[in-house]
Amino acid sequence: MPQVQKALEYVRANRDSFMNRYLDLLSIPSVSTLPENRQDVQKNALWLAGQLRGIGATRVDVIETPGHPIVYGERLDAPGKPTLLVYGHYDVQPADPLDEWQSDPFKPEIRGQNVYARGASDMKGSLMAFIMAAEAVARQGRAGAPMPVNLKFLLEGEEEIGSTHLPEFISSHRDLLKADAVVNCDGTISGPDLPSITYALRGLAYFELEVRGPRQDLHSGIFGGSIANPAQVLSELIAGMHDADGRVTLPGFYDKVRPLDEAERAALARLPTTDGQWIAMTGSPALCGEKGYTTLERVGARPTLEVNGIVSGFTGEGAKTVLPAKAMAKISMRLVADQDPADVYGQLQAYVESHAPDTVTWEVRELSRGPGAIMSRDSVAMKAAVAALAETFGVEPVFRREGGSVPVVGHMQQELGLDSIMLGFGLPDDNIHGPNEKQHLPTLLKGIEAYVRFLERLGA
Amino acid sequence: MPQVQKALEYVRANRDSFMNRYLDLLSIPSVSTLPENRQDVQKNALWLAGQLRGIGATRVDVIETPGHPIVYGERLDAPGKPTLLVYGHYDVQPADPLDEWQSDPFKPEIRGQNVYARGASDMKGSLMAFIMAAEAVARQGRAGAPMPVNLKFLLEGEEEIGSTHLPEFISSHRDLLKADAVVNCDGTISGPDLPSITYALRGLAYFELEVRGPRQDLHSGIFGGSIANPAQVLSELIAGMHDADGRVTLPGFYDKVRPLDEAERAALARLPTTDGQWIAMTGSPALCGEKGYTTLERVGARPTLEVNGIVSGFTGEGAKTVLPAKAMAKISMRLVADQDPADVYGQLQAYVESHAPDTVTWEVRELSRGPGAIMSRDSVAMKAAVAALAETFGVEPVFRREGGSVPVVGHMQQELGLDSIMLGFGLPDDNIHGPNEKQHLPTLLKGIEAYVRFLERLGA
Repeated sequence: MPQVQKALEYVRANRDSFMNRYLDLLSIPSVSTLPENRQDVQKNALWLAGQLRGIGATRVDVIETPGHPIVYGERLDAPGKPTLLVYGHYDVQPADPLDEWQSDPFKPEIRGQNVYARGASDMKGSLMAFIMAAEAVARQGRAGAPMPVNLKFLLEGEEEIGSTHLPEFISSHRDLLKADAVVNCDGTISGPDLPSITYALRGLAYFELEVRGPRQDLHSGIFGGSIANPAQVLSELIAGMHDADGRVTLPGFYDKVRPLDEAERAALARLPTTDGQWIAMTGSPALCGEKGYTTLERVGARPTLEVNGIVSGFTGEGAKTVLPAKAMAKISMRLVADQDPADVYGQLQAYVESHAPDTVTWEVRELSRGPGAIMSRDSVAMKAAVAALAETFGVEPVFRREGGSVPVVGHMQQELGLDSIMLGFGLPDDNIHGPNEKQHLPTLLKGIEAYVRFLERLGA
Repeated sequence: MPQVQKALEYVRANRDSFMNRYLDLLSIPSVSTLPENRQDVQKNALWLAGQLRGIGATRVDVIETPGHPIVYGERLDAPGKPTLLVYGHYDVQPADPLDEWQSDPFKPEIRGQNVYARGASDMKGSLMAFIMAAEAVARQGRAGAPMPVNLKFLLEGEEEIGSTHLPEFISSHRDLLKADAVVNCDGTISGPDLPSITYALRGLAYFELEVRGPRQDLHSGIFGGSIANPAQVLSELIAGMHDADGRVTLPGFYDKVRPLDEAERAALARLPTTDGQWIAMTGSPALCGEKGYTTLERVGARPTLEVNGIVSGFTGEGAKTVLPAKAMAKISMRLVADQDPADVYGQLQAYVESHAPDTVTWEVRELSRGPGAIMSRDSVAMKAAVAALAETFGVEPVFRREGGSVPVVGHMQQELGLDSIMLGFGLPDDNIHGPNEKQHLPTLLKGIEAYVRFLERLGA
């Protein structure tokens, strides 16, 4: 039996163990943004260190940072074989709004073919799948054959809060992280029967915009109509951030945007997702967006600006007649090549500067930034990934651009000179970042197989 | 010694008892909008019933409603004298944002000349002052002289939530509430040395506007740019509710507005409040409002629209990249004679109907409504109030229009045919409805004296 078959046999024989460990992992509320979950994030780091030891890593470090720990592990016993750097994150988004979950976000529940839990898809599923695949390859390897590749793991606990301390760690550990290829397990495929590989990611710039008016909340009857209402001013500022064609109005926002070429437009047009499916997936009454572009171009290849949250004044039950002292919005931009997230801060400042009335004061705070990235589709590692997906799913994977941002991919390009292979097994309708996040289990099990084939092919 | 002097002597001799009872009253968190304070509101009603018995009321009823109780009391032992109906409310606004209070909102604290507590000014101060005045008149009356007036008290526990059950109670108890005059203690004067009487109140219409987009919160990177963002759509709707001249754009909003005549404009112009004082009082960087009107005209004599609150998406700490499923704003309008609050619901509906894109769904919910009112400045009761203020403060009171709404005044005009004398002793900078609400104690003590003089003059 070829080694790859033995490894796949191991995967099949150990499904229960895999599921038990996956559900354990989902039970740890590793919410990186919430101070009350700090100990849980720490616990999760230690839990993962144990998993890396289980696949024979000879060095496992849990490295403290001013934020959450980075877990580094290596198994380098395949001399002459390529070294693969494996990226993942073990932190998750907050679970709120809690009352919209059908089951406890941190008590994973299997309903039908899915498991429901915060982090099930983003990205504890693919992370556990890769560890299981490495374990299968390693245990089969112990029976005589050497490992097909050398493995280095870099697992962070701050991805959902902007990877605060990872760029500095990468810059200062270039030798430690030296590798021939990177696999980034934080990805999705287009459908259960439609494997895909993302070769372009958008960058991210994330801000808070606060508008302040009176010293404190006032009675809206006594003062309303005589001073600027910060909630209204903030609404006006937000309303003006897009023009009638759905284009972002920040000065200079499109200056560096690399235009889509005809070949790419044609490739995106071949993707099977229809607008009808998009409507069904989101539940929105109708689609909209920047004029002159298709839905997949809008989310994958064009920069966007979204309000992620807004709050001001009284929002409880009933009627409180208050004129709010301040209003705050969370606003983020997805950026495409060759936009620089550092530029966007200045563009937003300039926009507010020229549009805010002098009846209020305001502040723009930058919360997070990360560059976008475009990866080569012709590398050895990319070819191994394509073949692994094709064999596992029985159909050739499609290449796609993704609307989301994985800033570490850009950092690794800049600091390590390495493209990342985006290989992960979430689905587009997994409700990541929202209530009732799920992972499709048959897809995840295929994911383990695809990772096994990817490792074996990379070392072949 | 004339009877009025004896009563004023009683007030001076019993200041400690007054203060103790006032602070007791402020310690009851009678927040009508919060379910968790339901028992406190009930307790407050019973506490007040005890106070009414203390001034010799021969009938005191605590009348249950589907919401909070109405307290009715009467002392009718002044045959041949006028009957005064006394209106007050014992409920208060919520105290949030709690972290902006310098002391516990329900543990009243005296700092300098002020007492700080939720309800200190709106309106437990004036309510307790009137009760103290009535007690002084009644105890002095026991020494031989009859009461100068008959008294009926109508005290509600739902003013801050739109007086839900009071209009129906008034309509169905016209005989019980029959009187010659009404004094409404829910008022303010213009300054510690500047007594004033409000003769016009704005009406109120209060709504929630909810905009819904996708079925649930989505990942802003994957879906952003392809579907409408409810927070953005709501912002656009709010931004469009005023034009560049600060006028409200709801269709028909100004149709029934009674124009200010030159005499009234001249009277308002004589009020001493300057724009500089207004800026100092609010802490706003600059004033603004409807073009063509002064500050006092804008807040007193013109209708306005304010956002009282807005919420959507992620508003906690950090960066959550969510595209919100929905966005909600609390929006209220202050109305002047002869606007009908019932019309405004239709105007808001029509506005949203014609401005909301078909990429979202929306709903307008009416939370509260009340008519405005203009009172005669020549009635016997008004003249008694003017004289009482002039004697107490040593300066003639000014007449003014007020931006706030006291819907019960309109209801009493319609149902009982009675104007209300607005006689209360809050000050414009008391932070009512906001954090650090206060009551100026020297003004409140003068208020007791003014109420005593008002009662004696009304019966003279």
